[in-house]
Amino acid sequence: MKCAIISVGTELLMGQIVDTNAVFLSRELNTLGYDVLYRYTVGDNDGRLEQILELALNDCDMVLTTGGLGPTEDDMTKETVARFMDDVLVEYLPAKEWLLKAKERRGKTFTDNNFKQILLPSKSTVFPTQVGTAPGFCCEKDGKYVICMPGPPREMTDMFKRRIRPFLESMQDNVIYYRTLRIFGKGESLVETELLDLIDAQTDPTIATYAKMCECSVRVASKRPTLEEAANAVVDMCGKIKEILGDCVYSDEDEDLAEVVGRKLIAAGTTISCAESCTGGMFASRLTDVPGISEVFERGIVTYTERAKMEELGVTRSVLEQETAVSPTVALQMAEGLAAKTGSDICISVTGVAGPSGGTGEHPVGQYFCGCTYKGKTIVKKVETHHHERDFNRYHAVLTMFDMINRLLEGMEIRSGKDIWGNQ
Amino acid sequence: MKCAIISVGTELLMGQIVDTNAVFLSRELNTLGYDVLYRYTVGDNDGRLEQILELALNDCDMVLTTGGLGPTEDDMTKETVARFMDDVLVEYLPAKEWLLKAKERRGKTFTDNNFKQILLPSKSTVFPTQVGTAPGFCCEKDGKYVICMPGPPREMTDMFKRRIRPFLESMQDNVIYYRTLRIFGKGESLVETELLDLIDAQTDPTIATYAKMCECSVRVASKRPTLEEAANAVVDMCGKIKEILGDCVYSDEDEDLAEVVGRKLIAAGTTISCAESCTGGMFASRLTDVPGISEVFERGIVTYTERAKMEELGVTRSVLEQETAVSPTVALQMAEGLAAKTGSDICISVTGVAGPSGGTGEHPVGQYFCGCTYKGKTIVKKVETHHHERDFNRYHAVLTMFDMINRLLEGMEIRSGKDIWGNQ
Repeated sequence: MKCAIISVGTELLMGQIVDTNAVFLSRELNTLGYDVLYRYTVGDNDGRLEQILELALNDCDMVLTTGGLGPTEDDMTKETVARFMDDVLVEYLPAKEWLLKAKERRGKTFTDNNFKQILLPSKSTVFPTQVGTAPGFCCEKDGKYVICMPGPPREMTDMFKRRIRPFLESMQDNVIYYRTLRIFGKGESLVETELLDLIDAQTDPTIATYAKMCECSVRVASKRPTLEEAANAVVDMCGKIKEILGDCVYSDEDEDLAEVVGRKLIAAGTTISCAESCTGGMFASRLTDVPGISEVFERGIVTYTERAKMEELGVTRSVLEQETAVSPTVALQMAEGLAAKTGSDICISVTGVAGPSGGTGEHPVGQYFCGCTYKGKTIVKKVETHHHERDFNRYHAVLTMFDMINRLLEGMEIRSGKDIWGNQ
Repeated sequence: MKCAIISVGTELLMGQIVDTNAVFLSRELNTLGYDVLYRYTVGDNDGRLEQILELALNDCDMVLTTGGLGPTEDDMTKETVARFMDDVLVEYLPAKEWLLKAKERRGKTFTDNNFKQILLPSKSTVFPTQVGTAPGFCCEKDGKYVICMPGPPREMTDMFKRRIRPFLESMQDNVIYYRTLRIFGKGESLVETELLDLIDAQTDPTIATYAKMCECSVRVASKRPTLEEAANAVVDMCGKIKEILGDCVYSDEDEDLAEVVGRKLIAAGTTISCAESCTGGMFASRLTDVPGISEVFERGIVTYTERAKMEELGVTRSVLEQETAVSPTVALQMAEGLAAKTGSDICISVTGVAGPSGGTGEHPVGQYFCGCTYKGKTIVKKVETHHHERDFNRYHAVLTMFDMINRLLEGMEIRSGKDIWGNQ
């Protein structure tokens, strides 16, 4: 099925925000077996939106729009689409109930113009929202479809995953099945090089690599008459890929590393505490993104000063003076000091130079040390990212911390000798 | 002048890469006073590109394309544009010289198909490249313009800054100036309601509201013959808006609240420490996003258990038993315990129910208490978000913490009486 994506919103044309929705939808639609022929971006202007709808449905069987479903005056996607599809807007009673409940919950922050959102095309299939207040919908006319979704990415992606994807799947003859492998410790170019023979030979399943910040992923998709055939083909190919890439593959279900580790900790009842310097609380923040983590997470200490490192974790002044705060011994003392204080099963630490400034010849921006105490042993790992961006280095260090924990829990190697210290 | 942007490249439609070119060009064109009416993305397909050119030049005076100027078979932008503008491709001799020089520099990585790039529309204005090997150009027909640029972002942005921007400036009568106000504490609907008279009456400057997670922004833009006139009109309108919205406007330069607060703390040399429960380190993580914050950030404690609250911050067992961990007294004890321990000028705390589960009748999901000790006084604020999403509630609490600090630093009110406790 051929389709087009229309992003509605003057803020996009002003260049204020990046259109992540269009990228997300392009990828999802391709994976579902839909061909995306065009993407359009248009401002909050009904005449122009109508013109684009006309053009797109000339070539395509389906158009997906994002944006312009909100409560304010300039939101006009719904009105334009209804008119274009020869339909009218009517009060949709279930949506009114959803809104009344939302209003009750939120009290006075809820304004009357929100009620504009209960008007929907009379013949449409409605997709409720679980994140925002604007429902989505699908209109059909003469075998052509227009699917409208809200613009805020959190609302759109949630609605797509829960409602639109199953709807689109139900319209396809073949079934698509896919898995996304997540990889930390090998870059996209290296992953692609290692998989080159498989990629060159691909027909079905298809294999695509994607770069993410500090990590990458491989998506394996198959389109077959039955789910079973497609799933078997994908699982088989994933097995081959994992054999080639080795233990840097940490998930084959597109989970975040924090989620994978958090889930394992909760399942095993393994308690954890953390001591952070350069990451400034980001490790604790990511770990506590995981619902239910309060079962096992005891405490986190962000020691941004030398005094805090000494007072909270028992790091010694002589080590700070002789080796500086960015050193394997400080990472070790941080982890062991935390273990002595908390008694948590796993105590993880990090100290380093996040940048953009503060680097020296011996301790360049992007250098950091992670320590981890587990079952009476402490291991310290040194990393140099060779990057200068503060956010990159901080996030990289957080992923390395999760990776170390994951490897310890699974009994895997913590990589190459010379960058490892500790009382193993 | 009205214009459209066309991004050419099948890889964009597959969702493999984010179209940063379109965002860059949108912003640049708007700043130059060009109205961007549409953005289109089309694959490497000449028929579809021609159709889009036709549609775009129907409404617009100018089209800018990126991509499809390279040496490979699927690059066909130049051929399509030349045909569409009634021109032919000819060997452009200066381009041949540039290429010969590039070939000399690069040696064997230079392939013969690069010479496809010396063919350019005979009547075009040519823009040399200093980064890649594909020149850009501008064709004109009947007062309509098509400007073609290479697709790789480094090549495109360099060519735009050096060649295209001066070219476009020379064609313009007006300039654009804009500011973005950032708001915490009022939702988009409420902001729009309060600004309705101004929005309804808008001609120039224009006013537009945008929703972000837990906050919103207002963009004010003016297009005038001189930068000074445009800037004056915008500053004047921002003043009116701030008068209406009050002190919930925390920036008129589109800065994050964490950045605003971090900058103020660093400038004043005001030291800070934090004690977090439900936000799990997210406050510390956001604060330490700010470069240079190590000057003033002393430490952060994430006390996820009652034991950690007692040991680290001196929260008393009797209060935990009588009032539970989610209570104003615990938030107060956390902030004051931290102040006693660290002596930091500002000690901020938070305890609450992030969700999605764990709520009770008395302490529903989304309820949290923030405490702040400053100049010997502690203030505690209660918030109920009425949201169930863990990430929303955590982020909302973090913004409230920054907002409290901002208000204390500026001597502003910490809002309504009944939700405030403390030894003020």
